[in-house]
Amino acid sequence: MLTDSRRLTIEWQHCDPAGIVFYPRYFAMFDTSTTMLFEKALGMTKYQLLKKYDFLGYPMVDTHTRFMLPTRFGDEVEIRTTLIAIKSSSFTVEHHILKGGELAVEGRDTRVWVVHDPEDLEKFKAKQIPPDVIARLTANR
Amino acid sequence: MLTDSRRLTIEWQHCDPAGIVFYPRYFAMFDTSTTMLFEKALGMTKYQLLKKYDFLGYPMVDTHTRFMLPTRFGDEVEIRTTLIAIKSSSFTVEHHILKGGELAVEGRDTRVWVVHDPEDLEKFKAKQIPPDVIARLTANR
Amino acid sequence: MLTDSRRLTIEWQHCDPAGIVFYPRYFAMFDTSTTMLFEKALGMTKYQLLKKYDFLGYPMVDTHTRFMLPTRFGDEVEIRTTLIAIKSSSFTVEHHILKGGELAVEGRDTRVWVVHDPEDLEKFKAKQIPPDVIARLTANR
Amino acid sequence: MLTDSRRLTIEWQHCDPAGIVFYPRYFAMFDTSTTMLFEKALGMTKYQLLKKYDFLGYPMVDTHTRFMLPTRFGDEVEIRTTLIAIKSSSFTVEHHILKGGELAVEGRDTRVWVVHDPEDLEKFKAKQIPPDVIARLTANR
Repeated sequence: MLTDSRRLTIEWQHCDPAGIVFYPRYFAMFDTSTTMLFEKALGMTKYQLLKKYDFLGYPMVDTHTRFMLPTRFGDEVEIRTTLIAIKSSSFTVEHHILKGGELAVEGRDTRVWVVHDPEDLEKFKAKQIPPDVIARLTANR
Repeated sequence: MLTDSRRLTIEWQHCDPAGIVFYPRYFAMFDTSTTMLFEKALGMTKYQLLKKYDFLGYPMVDTHTRFMLPTRFGDEVEIRTTLIAIKSSSFTVEHHILKGGELAVEGRDTRVWVVHDPEDLEKFKAKQIPPDVIARLTANR
Repeated sequence: MLTDSRRLTIEWQHCDPAGIVFYPRYFAMFDTSTTMLFEKALGMTKYQLLKKYDFLGYPMVDTHTRFMLPTRFGDEVEIRTTLIAIKSSSFTVEHHILKGGELAVEGRDTRVWVVHDPEDLEKFKAKQIPPDVIARLTANR
Repeated sequence: MLTDSRRLTIEWQHCDPAGIVFYPRYFAMFDTSTTMLFEKALGMTKYQLLKKYDFLGYPMVDTHTRFMLPTRFGDEVEIRTTLIAIKSSSFTVEHHILKGGELAVEGRDTRVWVVHDPEDLEKFKAKQIPPDVIARLTANR
């Protein structure tokens, strides 16, 4: 499957008064990792991707995330992100954060490809992921 | 069960380039709602609670959250938070965000009561939730 | 001058490992207070405002902010925001955060009314603030 | 003077509904750059620094920041941070964000070295920066 990994240093700005990462910040890290996975497979930035395929993004519809070990500012972690499933208009990725070789956080996210709903511009509507995008995402196994 | 509700106006700062709430911000809202539930049941602020019971907090260990409708800046939403289970050192809360009466976000979080690990001050260790805290949290049914 | 005030409880999510508000969060609070000032004077949400006047927002161009006292989760503060100057395409607001009657934070921000630059859609361009917006903002003295 | 530079890719999570960096996020970037400057000069992480010198941090007391060009997700920027002054218990740093060689953001921050106020543990008190820290920070010219 398409997979990517990056190293990150936990920053003061990520942490709460307990001195550890405030867990909502992990979701922002995972959001970036998901985008980096797409950018790597598609060879363009998300900004270019949104323009080329004229869509609004791939908002989260379902996440199940577990936190095993706290991480704190100064910790070096590794984030591994893998595309584990892709359907016509949605996809699922898994993230693992490793700290010193130990699993610290593990998440599974499902997101949907969306455009404006033509009947109500304030709403979103799922749309089929373009075939060449699917081809690129699944080719990099 | 112990439950609480609050109204919130979605702010520009919560939203992303798609114009909708960047989903990690919902977790910060839920974190605050969980604390407000405790503060209401215990009659003290979290700051006072941490001091009185000499613990570090109740970090997240597991969340399963689903996103049904986007919300955008200017939207008025209601967040309902309910304590649905409490064990010796952990508890589970459910959150529902309603927008115009429709369910927009739904999450179930399990958290654990922690102190410093006496054998390694950089680690956390689960600790029994004080009996009077449990009594207060479960009395308000 | 047009002025507004709101009360806010400092949340865990705003604070850093020193237990106090991580100062970038104050800017997000001030951003919201600025918008609330406009919404109050204009009688519409920012979302409606952007649509009605077809502009992109009022990004920050200059801020000078001083921090006198730390605030921490559980603290109740008051944020006072005042429009102190308005020019053809920019305006200046001042914010004061009071904690127990003492001045904790003080900021002065200048922002500019912008639209897309027709010659380069990726850039912004200052535009005259609509006369009726100026009239509303300056009428509430 | 002690100076450092780093490259950063602007992320979706940094941006607002106008598609550009929500300016409070720049302050979080500058906070990290300031810490990285210290870590480079002192050869230890901030976590180690706080422990070694038994202090609470170096909270912001004054910032003057100007925003010349917007940056958006996918943009590669360079952040240059320089220590421009150091006094007995405070110091001043300057930050410049460059985008494609052009100055996008420019800030000047003064911070103070603090410990708990022994007379009121909920307050902070300025303390002299340790001489060996000053020596290290000023030696790297």
